[in-house]
Amino acid sequence: MKIIIDAMGGDRAPEQIVLGALQAAKEFGVKIVLIGRGEELLACMKSQGWDTLPAGVEVANAEDVVDMHADPVEVLRQHRGSSMVLGLKMLADGGGDAFISAGNSGALLTAATLVVKRIRGIRRAAFAPLLPVGGGTILIDAGANNECTPEYLLQFGCMGSLYAKKAHHKPEPRVALLNNGAEEGKGDELHRAAYELLKQAGENGTINFIGNIEARDVPDGGADVVVADGFSGNVLLKSIEGTAIYMSKLMKEMFTRSAVSKLGYLCCKKGVNHIKQQMDYREVGGSILVGITKPVIKAHGSSDARAIRGAIKQAIAAVESDFCEDIRANVAAMSLPREVSHEA
Amino acid sequence: MKIIIDAMGGDRAPEQIVLGALQAAKEFGVKIVLIGRGEELLACMKSQGWDTLPAGVEVANAEDVVDMHADPVEVLRQHRGSSMVLGLKMLADGGGDAFISAGNSGALLTAATLVVKRIRGIRRAAFAPLLPVGGGTILIDAGANNECTPEYLLQFGCMGSLYAKKAHHKPEPRVALLNNGAEEGKGDELHRAAYELLKQAGENGTINFIGNIEARDVPDGGADVVVADGFSGNVLLKSIEGTAIYMSKLMKEMFTRSAVSKLGYLCCKKGVNHIKQQMDYREVGGSILVGITKPVIKAHGSSDARAIRGAIKQAIAAVESDFCEDIRANVAAMSLPREVSHEA
Repeated sequence: MKIIIDAMGGDRAPEQIVLGALQAAKEFGVKIVLIGRGEELLACMKSQGWDTLPAGVEVANAEDVVDMHADPVEVLRQHRGSSMVLGLKMLADGGGDAFISAGNSGALLTAATLVVKRIRGIRRAAFAPLLPVGGGTILIDAGANNECTPEYLLQFGCMGSLYAKKAHHKPEPRVALLNNGAEEGKGDELHRAAYELLKQAGENGTINFIGNIEARDVPDGGADVVVADGFSGNVLLKSIEGTAIYMSKLMKEMFTRSAVSKLGYLCCKKGVNHIKQQMDYREVGGSILVGITKPVIKAHGSSDARAIRGAIKQAIAAVESDFCEDIRANVAAMSLPREVSHEA
Repeated sequence: MKIIIDAMGGDRAPEQIVLGALQAAKEFGVKIVLIGRGEELLACMKSQGWDTLPAGVEVANAEDVVDMHADPVEVLRQHRGSSMVLGLKMLADGGGDAFISAGNSGALLTAATLVVKRIRGIRRAAFAPLLPVGGGTILIDAGANNECTPEYLLQFGCMGSLYAKKAHHKPEPRVALLNNGAEEGKGDELHRAAYELLKQAGENGTINFIGNIEARDVPDGGADVVVADGFSGNVLLKSIEGTAIYMSKLMKEMFTRSAVSKLGYLCCKKGVNHIKQQMDYREVGGSILVGITKPVIKAHGSSDARAIRGAIKQAIAAVESDFCEDIRANVAAMSLPREVSHEA
């Protein structure tokens, strides 16, 4: 297995990307291609104590970098020589099995769609991160598609279910629709129509649809796969992250307010570490782009070596599961007949 | 000042509603009208030790109750004799200064709009709770309007700003638009158009608009007023609540995992109570319905006496601030010219 990594994407590139990739290559025994400014990458390895390229690691040269403010629509025209675009081309051409980038999300979505292509019949690709709460809940879509049709949401639910089943070993993933109430009939027109389609997919056995879910019930693991339009999915993901950060701050204040409370911290250290680990986005990997012909993973923009390791681990699971093939084989069951599809 | 309270609404009515109302009447020195099944309410008071009606407390009879499954659209036709509808009529007729109900939200929104009426020129009323994080952030709309126009969001921002200024004593409330990124130009068509209107309102001095806000930055107090369409506002509010509950569970596990960690709890008790108090929805009151001619407050469905007390405190602040009058006086500054308005 060979994982291609955009060594130039993210706030802490290339140092932390290179470090995480080299460590993971050794730990997981996979081949790695680091793509970026070759000399910079080699210098970076040298400064970290690697005088020669470790076994199984290649460096591919790409002079350009897609920055965080690049216009996604223009990425292929303006950055065809970038580490992101060349890495995706390498993936499309069979030069690797998965691609990881901590760079510009919008650009990655556009470039992956244009270069690696969507699976035939899939209307839109979607970001599907594992939430840092709830013991392994997958959110799909976390922000790739601001504007959705009911059919997109149907496909997100079916693709998310296959991904959860294959790559996360959930035998019958409970699929729920993020809505403003748990009862049937809740939500706006989009969500009411999506509910009907997901319900039908549940009735015909394509997925295990458990109905609507309120945001309140997501963190405690109320579903294995939470289907959302990209806008509210993004709000869900980020408010969970923001609240977790805020509460961690409160906990820190709690433990540091006095000498006695500092003693309290020492008494609870194990438990604190357990919470930290559970909420650590670096452990859960990045957002996988589901609906593309091969695994493409968006790592967190502020990824350090540990987060890159997490994304590589996730990429390995995705490649081994071959979930893209499952989606391809089941596209008919997750699509509307042509004449009723909302697509032109 | 006289506060009208729906004694029959909510999971814990009438006992906890009555208890909270009687305690608050004494604590805050306001007049209270409890509306509901008269005999039941008197029996309830008796069982709590009040043999006669305390000074300043009245009971008004209403035989019917709007249940949680009632269809909001039918509430005036099917429940004209309910505590909710009669209480709102009493408010509209000047029999009190504010109305509180822990009952069916959708029914309250519809009945308040039809009976107490929107302020002239306001397109839609919106729920504006104080978030249980961030030190006093107001969210508007938390779920009254699934489908919004840019003008609604403009009005939510302006009304929320006036409410924060008057009832929460924030001199120059920072108003931000909930979006999927902080940069200008983010979001779908609705949010891009709303951004433009809010920006203009900022430029002409109507509000202090600070731009888009990501959900991640809300819990730590990134804005004083967060403007949202009702669907994503609902997701924001409930995922903050759900994550806080989930993390409280993790903290409890942390403190109870061993004898040593239990000692740790004793060392941190003060800090734990501080966190609990900060996250306690009962302290922050309910969701005020902004845009109606008089203060109407939706208390949490599971309100106990303490939550009712919080809602009464909030109602007093709302009445004293006279923010409804401020909205009325400023409607022109928060509305589009008739010919470009999206309303018919």
